[in-house]
Amino acid sequence: MYEGIVQDLIDELGRLPGIGPKSAQRIAFHILQTESFDVARLAEILTTVRERVRFCSICGNISEQETCSICRDPRRDPALICVVEEAKDVVAIERTREFRGLYHVLGGAISPIDGIGPDQLRIRQLMQRLADGTVQEVIIATDPNLEGEATATYLSRMLTTLEIRVTRLASGLPVGGDLEYADEVTLGRAFEGRRVVG
Amino acid sequence: MYEGIVQDLIDELGRLPGIGPKSAQRIAFHILQTESFDVARLAEILTTVRERVRFCSICGNISEQETCSICRDPRRDPALICVVEEAKDVVAIERTREFRGLYHVLGGAISPIDGIGPDQLRIRQLMQRLADGTVQEVIIATDPNLEGEATATYLSRMLTTLEIRVTRLASGLPVGGDLEYADEVTLGRAFEGRRVVG
Repeated sequence: MYEGIVQDLIDELGRLPGIGPKSAQRIAFHILQTESFDVARLAEILTTVRERVRFCSICGNISEQETCSICRDPRRDPALICVVEEAKDVVAIERTREFRGLYHVLGGAISPIDGIGPDQLRIRQLMQRLADGTVQEVIIATDPNLEGEATATYLSRMLTTLEIRVTRLASGLPVGGDLEYADEVTLGRAFEGRRVVG
Repeated sequence: MYEGIVQDLIDELGRLPGIGPKSAQRIAFHILQTESFDVARLAEILTTVRERVRFCSICGNISEQETCSICRDPRRDPALICVVEEAKDVVAIERTREFRGLYHVLGGAISPIDGIGPDQLRIRQLMQRLADGTVQEVIIATDPNLEGEATATYLSRMLTTLEIRVTRLASGLPVGGDLEYADEVTLGRAFEGRRVVG
């Protein structure tokens, strides 16, 4: 539809997740027409980001060094490991400032439909980290969906053989939401997990 | 929130139109984790696109040459000029296959709030194109919103001094919308039903 390189740019942008043809076109024109937009900088970052970014050899989080900033931080509690699916979950949890332990990034969740079994996840590396007896609690923080629950169940079974406390993040009503808009499953979980107050 | 270059990438992506922080993060992780995504190609296209793409010296459409492919096409009717706001409007109209004339891209619309007056648009260049008497009809296809209508009114007043038919795309386009988002059929109908103004 467009000539050469402009269509190439639209096509490449359209390959990114969540960007449809219309968005790709709008972004392409923005890049073309906005003098202040630093194209060279974006191109340079794209070129260096994949060569420079690797995954932490301990926890699997993204890192620019051999180990990530959290694993290197001596103030973090090494007796506590929070297991998540993806590196972006680490960022979400860090934002809460509630958790002062370490992480373990699985790299996904068990999903037979997508052909992802336990062997495709970093579960073996987790077992290795637990071998020396430092860790006293593993908090399973996989997503509260089908795959995440399956992964949590699998992990909790693996971990019962060890002398380690295994916990799962509470499910319940989202804070700030309306009860009437909660789905049945969430509402059911909120009932199951009800606590004594006052 | 992230270390160095990953946060840089998220920040740069977040500068693009329609991409919020969440989308920027999702795209950044996609780029990092998807082996098949050709980062080098996107970076290369970004680098070359702005040096290679310029604006047609006749109509103002985007082009990789001195003049665009439409202005160079001898099969297009030089007696008919369709005036649009942006280069993406040219693509939207070309998609209808209803129009066989030439274009004139104004580079925006009159908008006192944004400080855009007639002098910031390519109106002088349009008048120069009309001077030799080749053009018999000017179709004003600015967006059917406040700025587009103001621009259409301004143009039709300018053009009444000349012996040229001036038409405006028919209503049928949803009022308050952007021309580029109109579907082909609506846009085609709008061409068929264009009326003489001024």
